[in-house]
Amino acid sequence: MAELPDKRTAFIDWYLAVVEQANLSDKRYGVKGMNVWTPYGMRARRHLDRIMIREIEATGSQAVEFPALIPAPEFAKEKEHIKGFDAQVFWVTKGGLNDLDVPLVLRPTSETAIYPVFALWVRSHRDLPLNVYQIVNTFRYETKTTRPFVRVREIHFFEEHTCQVDEAAATERVRSNLAAFRKMAEAFGLPYLSLRRPDWDKFAGAHYSIAFDIPVGGARTLQIGSVHHYRDNFSKPYGIVYEAADGSQHHPHQTTFGLSERLLGAIVAVHGDAKGAVFPSTIAPYEIVLVPIPSPGDAGATGSLARSLASRLERAGRRAVLDDGDDRPGAKYYRWELAGVPLRLEVGRREAASGNVTAVDRLGRKTTIAIETLEAGVEERLTAFDRDLRAAADAAFRDAFRVASELGELAGSDRVRVVGWCGKEACGHAIETAIDGALLGVPEEGPPVAPGAPSKCIACGESTGVRWALAAQPL
Amino acid sequence: MAELPDKRTAFIDWYLAVVEQANLSDKRYGVKGMNVWTPYGMRARRHLDRIMIREIEATGSQAVEFPALIPAPEFAKEKEHIKGFDAQVFWVTKGGLNDLDVPLVLRPTSETAIYPVFALWVRSHRDLPLNVYQIVNTFRYETKTTRPFVRVREIHFFEEHTCQVDEAAATERVRSNLAAFRKMAEAFGLPYLSLRRPDWDKFAGAHYSIAFDIPVGGARTLQIGSVHHYRDNFSKPYGIVYEAADGSQHHPHQTTFGLSERLLGAIVAVHGDAKGAVFPSTIAPYEIVLVPIPSPGDAGATGSLARSLASRLERAGRRAVLDDGDDRPGAKYYRWELAGVPLRLEVGRREAASGNVTAVDRLGRKTTIAIETLEAGVEERLTAFDRDLRAAADAAFRDAFRVASELGELAGSDRVRVVGWCGKEACGHAIETAIDGALLGVPEEGPPVAPGAPSKCIACGESTGVRWALAAQPL
Repeated sequence: MAELPDKRTAFIDWYLAVVEQANLSDKRYGVKGMNVWTPYGMRARRHLDRIMIREIEATGSQAVEFPALIPAPEFAKEKEHIKGFDAQVFWVTKGGLNDLDVPLVLRPTSETAIYPVFALWVRSHRDLPLNVYQIVNTFRYETKTTRPFVRVREIHFFEEHTCQVDEAAATERVRSNLAAFRKMAEAFGLPYLSLRRPDWDKFAGAHYSIAFDIPVGGARTLQIGSVHHYRDNFSKPYGIVYEAADGSQHHPHQTTFGLSERLLGAIVAVHGDAKGAVFPSTIAPYEIVLVPIPSPGDAGATGSLARSLASRLERAGRRAVLDDGDDRPGAKYYRWELAGVPLRLEVGRREAASGNVTAVDRLGRKTTIAIETLEAGVEERLTAFDRDLRAAADAAFRDAFRVASELGELAGSDRVRVVGWCGKEACGHAIETAIDGALLGVPEEGPPVAPGAPSKCIACGESTGVRWALAAQPL
Repeated sequence: MAELPDKRTAFIDWYLAVVEQANLSDKRYGVKGMNVWTPYGMRARRHLDRIMIREIEATGSQAVEFPALIPAPEFAKEKEHIKGFDAQVFWVTKGGLNDLDVPLVLRPTSETAIYPVFALWVRSHRDLPLNVYQIVNTFRYETKTTRPFVRVREIHFFEEHTCQVDEAAATERVRSNLAAFRKMAEAFGLPYLSLRRPDWDKFAGAHYSIAFDIPVGGARTLQIGSVHHYRDNFSKPYGIVYEAADGSQHHPHQTTFGLSERLLGAIVAVHGDAKGAVFPSTIAPYEIVLVPIPSPGDAGATGSLARSLASRLERAGRRAVLDDGDDRPGAKYYRWELAGVPLRLEVGRREAASGNVTAVDRLGRKTTIAIETLEAGVEERLTAFDRDLRAAADAAFRDAFRVASELGELAGSDRVRVVGWCGKEACGHAIETAIDGALLGVPEEGPPVAPGAPSKCIACGESTGVRWALAAQPL
């Protein structure tokens, strides 16, 4: 395996090398940006999905699945939406040997697949709220450079779609989604910002959009999810109507909540280091790797012991993998560190004789665990590992932002910038030009740095209505 | 809700009515044969998938996921395969506003997506066996009448693909798949036949195909899965090669194992009755429904008790649903029977006062369960229910077949027919013509009826090399 590029100075190269060498994704498939989920990547994805499902179902959302193909006329019904997606969809035009009468769009997102059916499902106020989600693949004809997990043409996608009685109830659902995402991000060990996107950058057809962003080095950020309030922008053209208790007819207000495999890319990007990937135990494909250390005259005793300890951990509900291959221990350590396994147990003859194994966590800390109380020892090490991994991510997060008070500070910035913004679009674009990136928007829960209120807009100098906003170079 | 059609005399109408009224699938989507998975249908599917995953992973197979779109040149590499699928695939010809240079096929099955990558993954005998599976949607441009779960254009699909060192190892993998399916079918309560398909009916590109069929009334059968031995029919054109320990180069022999949402249709078809769907507890969306029986002066006491009992059952790992809506109890019984819930608990004031609830299983048997030992009582009722549901399915299965000894008996048969067959294709076609259906093939594990060996081929009268075979009208 080649040495990894430097994460700080060559972030993208480092990221691509880690994803490839840890065997999380295989990009050698015959269509650009459509990658193969390897067995190892799928194990991580399974836990990603499990956590998303757990948290969204805790808020009363139910799983559904709508078809992948959308008839062209349905796709075109909401005007802003079609404008936003027209240039980036795949079209199915032939079935068998014949041209289709009605061309079909391979879903880039599912509003236009779902809402004609919502119009059948929603009849009365008793049908509301309607909160459903699906985990499906979506398709975008990306013309930019593709990157595993981060920008792909077939996307492993989570999308919640809801109908609420009115605008206030929809706002409440947005809040509930933000709270659910907080719990998911907690499980992934990811600090992030919730930002209300400027109007010119909201989702096609939305009333407003709140996006989740993380810093990924320098002024760069990565959007890792979003929640949208649609008001009745879709329910009107799609004819979704309910009858209130008093017999009057109304369009419900709608929301959506979108996440994707990009979260897996974010976890690699945030936690990974010079040795490779680092997974929090919550989503690690394996939480523990056991490596027997053979010694002369050992006759396989450490191998059998390691195997029995792996079984014990599996029985205790842990995801453990035994590496009893022929490579020397050092090569195994290297490979499993690259793969990001949180905890390595080295089973050596001398330690075993004294009833112990050596434990090395992915932060490099070496301790000894008594075999007799193995399960408790592993539990304790993994808890400490997750806590300290999160603390390191939090520290890096805090260091990722700097307040800027002049537009001139934005060019070539080595941090994501916190700026005063008056809210005017012209000033927003001036900020975007200055940082050669985007105004990400106004933080929903306060800025990550900058105590006190901003004194003036960094672009026009205006002091009324000024709020903190984030300026960055989104990946 | 309308009365259900008669299952015996109007099977297809009965099936469609049950699927619709139990709200397992919504076929009102704007593309024929592409149906919506409702929340209730998704709950059943989740357990279907869970059981498939459990049994296939127990045999050492790992989850992967390959892209949905296949470049036309890869799709065309294996000649028999492309002939088999050419007329029934959807073609993606445009990306955004432009025609694609290379048209893409929306996978009808994934051999041609996976095998070019297997050619990269398989290098050495140490990479074998390679056993991977995926659960994805596949797409077929069906021109026949579509039916929810049974014949659809977007199919929830399970497919295992393997590479083995040689033909014998691939035969061994076929055996392992047959054993895994036996365990899955056990969980679904489904008796079935494993049949080696005649050569003219094997999978496009296979060396041989073994299919699983169930009788569904009269002479009708439904194929619910299949296992194929490919020999090196695909590994040669796709260039999958490994180096043996002695340095020589070989093509691996391959197998596949395919299942789909059709299993859910089969479960409805086999277990359902005049009142609607009937689910074994293993895959029931809910195992138990609790219905409070309000009485005058009750002040919601039965409702609260029912709620607390539902929580107790959930904590015990059961899937319980509380129906505390405004409908009268009779309407609720009707609806949950239609939905196929295995066990109903009626929480009435008088029974509750004496520490009991009334339990009625979906086979109509009424007993009393002491609240103090609710969990054990429910466990016992569900175990008995699953056992007796299976016994009823077994009895119906045994009654579904009849030996025929003359071709003349096949026309208008009210049973699936067991016939002597010499193995010649001409005789096979004569049998197919006589029954106006198909020769399903030779049973792998003996015929379901017919003691002893067959004396002669039903078509040519030849007595050498004659074996039992099944003749039916596949749905």
